[in-house]
Amino acid sequence: MNTQELAKEFTSMCRSGKFDEAGKKFWSDDVVSIEPMTGEMARLKGRKAVEGKGKAFLDNNEIHGVKVEGPFVNGDEFTLHFEMDLTPKGKSRTTMKEIGLYRVKNGKVAEEKFFAVH
Amino acid sequence: MNTQELAKEFTSMCRSGKFDEAGKKFWSDDVVSIEPMTGEMARLKGRKAVEGKGKAFLDNNEIHGVKVEGPFVNGDEFTLHFEMDLTPKGKSRTTMKEIGLYRVKNGKVAEEKFFAVH
Repeated sequence: MNTQELAKEFTSMCRSGKFDEAGKKFWSDDVVSIEPMTGEMARLKGRKAVEGKGKAFLDNNEIHGVKVEGPFVNGDEFTLHFEMDLTPKGKSRTTMKEIGLYRVKNGKVAEEKFFAVH
Repeated sequence: MNTQELAKEFTSMCRSGKFDEAGKKFWSDDVVSIEPMTGEMARLKGRKAVEGKGKAFLDNNEIHGVKVEGPFVNGDEFTLHFEMDLTPKGKSRTTMKEIGLYRVKNGKVAEEKFFAVH
């Protein structure tokens, strides 16, 4: 499976809201996940840590819908544009937009990096 | 000027269609520009080469409008989502979407990489 094919299948799963399954199928065991923040959650390494972050996000946000545009590909990297309609626990419903950059190595996502609007 | 400030000003210039001026102001002298293609245009290095590519693009496309979403920032990198309404010379009017990833070093854009939908 080349990067283009992986990107298409990964995107299709995200588009269906199956973020967990996309990760389970495509993350490498030592995947690195980089968030646009400071602190100990900014850079996580390893499948368990990254899965834990995903679970924490779903525990703390009610997801009403997600739009995914892409994949936009170049070489062994691809990017996705996310637009999430969600309600963070105890807060108002909002729209969150971000861009994810994925680096593919040996048929797996070796690194994901997220970019936020400030 | 930090990455966030640079990204905002760069984006604002792109949004006004001033791609040339944004480059002139913010590219480093040895900027690297990476396109989602193969061949000799895929990776250009140096301000003159990259300016030449920009000029060739404008010579070969009539730009009717551009929407720029962002900047989406993480550390010393930012991304932009472009949607261009254009007519390539001798072809039909079309919409081109792409994502640009910019790496900032010493207050300049040291590398730009573009991602396309296939």
